[in-house]
Amino acid sequence: MKKEQKAKIVGINLNYLMADKDFYRARKKFGSPLFVYSEKMLELNCEEAKNMPDAYGLTVRYAMKANSNKTILDYFDKKGLHIDSSSGLEVERALAYGINPRKIQLSTQDLPNNLSELLKKNIIIDACSINQLKKIGKLSPGREISIRINPGNIEGGSHQNTNTAGEESCFGLWHTQTKQAISIAKEHELKITRLHIHVGSGNKKEVWKKVIKSALKYVNILPEVKTLNIGGGFKVRRDVIELISLKEIGETIKKELIKFHNTTGRKIHLEIEPGTFLVANTCFLLTTIKDKVKTKNYEFLKIDTGMHDLTRPALYQAEHGVMLIKKYENQTLKMKDVFEQIQKKDLTSKYFVSGHCCERDLITINKDNTIKEVELENPEIGDIIIILGCGAYTSSMNLKNYNSYLEPAEILITKTKNREFKLIKRKQTFKQMIQNEV
Amino acid sequence: MKKEQKAKIVGINLNYLMADKDFYRARKKFGSPLFVYSEKMLELNCEEAKNMPDAYGLTVRYAMKANSNKTILDYFDKKGLHIDSSSGLEVERALAYGINPRKIQLSTQDLPNNLSELLKKNIIIDACSINQLKKIGKLSPGREISIRINPGNIEGGSHQNTNTAGEESCFGLWHTQTKQAISIAKEHELKITRLHIHVGSGNKKEVWKKVIKSALKYVNILPEVKTLNIGGGFKVRRDVIELISLKEIGETIKKELIKFHNTTGRKIHLEIEPGTFLVANTCFLLTTIKDKVKTKNYEFLKIDTGMHDLTRPALYQAEHGVMLIKKYENQTLKMKDVFEQIQKKDLTSKYFVSGHCCERDLITINKDNTIKEVELENPEIGDIIIILGCGAYTSSMNLKNYNSYLEPAEILITKTKNREFKLIKRKQTFKQMIQNEV
Repeated sequence: MKKEQKAKIVGINLNYLMADKDFYRARKKFGSPLFVYSEKMLELNCEEAKNMPDAYGLTVRYAMKANSNKTILDYFDKKGLHIDSSSGLEVERALAYGINPRKIQLSTQDLPNNLSELLKKNIIIDACSINQLKKIGKLSPGREISIRINPGNIEGGSHQNTNTAGEESCFGLWHTQTKQAISIAKEHELKITRLHIHVGSGNKKEVWKKVIKSALKYVNILPEVKTLNIGGGFKVRRDVIELISLKEIGETIKKELIKFHNTTGRKIHLEIEPGTFLVANTCFLLTTIKDKVKTKNYEFLKIDTGMHDLTRPALYQAEHGVMLIKKYENQTLKMKDVFEQIQKKDLTSKYFVSGHCCERDLITINKDNTIKEVELENPEIGDIIIILGCGAYTSSMNLKNYNSYLEPAEILITKTKNREFKLIKRKQTFKQMIQNEV
Repeated sequence: MKKEQKAKIVGINLNYLMADKDFYRARKKFGSPLFVYSEKMLELNCEEAKNMPDAYGLTVRYAMKANSNKTILDYFDKKGLHIDSSSGLEVERALAYGINPRKIQLSTQDLPNNLSELLKKNIIIDACSINQLKKIGKLSPGREISIRINPGNIEGGSHQNTNTAGEESCFGLWHTQTKQAISIAKEHELKITRLHIHVGSGNKKEVWKKVIKSALKYVNILPEVKTLNIGGGFKVRRDVIELISLKEIGETIKKELIKFHNTTGRKIHLEIEPGTFLVANTCFLLTTIKDKVKTKNYEFLKIDTGMHDLTRPALYQAEHGVMLIKKYENQTLKMKDVFEQIQKKDLTSKYFVSGHCCERDLITINKDNTIKEVELENPEIGDIIIILGCGAYTSSMNLKNYNSYLEPAEILITKTKNREFKLIKRKQTFKQMIQNEV
């Protein structure tokens, strides 16, 4: 048994998600491919985020670009989370879903044309450049605002890949512009009450310590700042399902905030802005094996989805776990038993899982962009394969309609004992795909 | 003057496309960003493909996945081109546009559930695996079919990247299965009258020679084959606009087909299947500069589009040329003059062009995934930047609605003297973006 397969059952009770028979029941009702979300997983992640240790208050702000589905946003809203929007249209979307504008932050590269209207609704605006700051000042003088500062490279931060900070990143005011920002704010009587710094720090407490120390330097020269938003970027694996604790990171940050209070007398409210963390592992992509194909040394499983539904393997060489869900006639086997069976390894072979698009469309891929093999026990045409970690940057960020494939339906498995299926997005129709062509 | 800027005016008369004032006229009427296609460029590419030398007849089959817009397909259909579809849904799309089913080939990784219905309409079916062949045989015995063979690695072919052939590719029957395919065909009285081999050969005649020689080996053991489809994969640059000649490749292939006729007495009809070649350089993405941002050593131009409209830089590190289109008040300057001005270099600086999505969203990128600088003359907020080579795998293959940005409108500039704008795709509405959410 390879490490990968074993790891899948570490850290989380699979019964939270679905039993094997649920997958076949879901496919029968909604078709394949299908995005399948778990309410239980949403709850677990949500609680974990909300329970992050804090010194003087914590706001968890969901980065909605990770998944903008109404049901997901509704869920987090009910749980008391706030919203981060990265475009004016995301703000409009959150508003259309009934979210209180005061809970919505707009932090964007591109101020929308209707900014004035959005500002009147009292959303939180995060100025991300000198020009943005000037524009906001002109449109809405006297307002409380947030500014985003790019603190430059922070050793160990994952900005090298994610490009959220450092000199190759265009997000936020370059840190040497802070004084200029203060003077522009003054000119328009803007009160800078919030500071936003997001460097994509991952999960290392040492890095977070540096980030928070760096952030507090800017808080120090911005006397009206009451809230520090340190962004998201908590790393989540998608090749296995595991819960990640934010306890250590929280404790690290808490210590620094207490120190800051001790020296300055200022109690800083903390904000985090997770996207991936909250939703990545709340969803499987349910797919069906359509063909088995052999070349000289490789055996492929072709499934009925591909880069149009899940672009991350092609775009980022993201490693998403895959699991074969066999249909057991008597339906008595639990998923746990299935894993035990797999571990016997008798019928297990190595396969490459490929999407159905007409180009290199690998589902199983290595970080170095090479083709990746997975061990599966006796996969047959018609069997279900689920792809793990499809809750974030999947349905919200995919090559929709490439090869003219339609967007799949999305369902939520409720937390109730009988695991109800709630349709949260209808399958796109053919007519919709071409509705705007003239 | 850097090579890149100069190259843009080599090889093609820019007046075929648009004059500088047209861009501002188009933006005023249809907004920004905007896909702008040129009928003249469609015509030039179409004629070039149709004029490729051939020995015993040529069919140009447009690979519609490159761009599935109705107007584009209509245009090629009127010009006598046939269609290649890579999914059952692409077939349905072409049929919905009124294309004769006999001109549509289905060559897919994933046979659709309504295959039987499509076969009854007399589309051309290309069997791409043993299982597909069996299924087609059962559904439609006695039929004329095509088979796709994966000939293995062919030295110099671009299969290493494009994965269209070789043992790491799952496209087509692995070549050692040819005999098995013949016997399955016999069992179902299928006549294999067409052979499909596509290795993504690029533009080198030496590679094409190897490909055609390899293909003819299989034609030789498939006595009923009358048509050889050698796929597409002609390379096109997107950092400059230039017309590519297929003459040399055509001559190379022609020679081999004549030799084959001389030894076997069989006259083989040739088919090519270009996508990129026909449409890549028929379209600019018109965008607007929204912000200018400086970090330590870098200056960024942020434009009002990004990876949701043009995913290729992020996905493939594709190098798309960018051009600044200044608005000259008196409108007397032709684009040629603008280039001459640029060559004076007085106001030229180095910039990085970034999309507006909330992640690393570089428009100008190097092949090694590093950030790429371009020289532009005095770009200002509000100016138009056009991105070259956005006709293929752009509107048909992009991260639609990422960050909740809406799909842009698309227009065609007619060939007529006054360059009319024809709307070929309406801008997506906000309501449409969320229409399937429950």
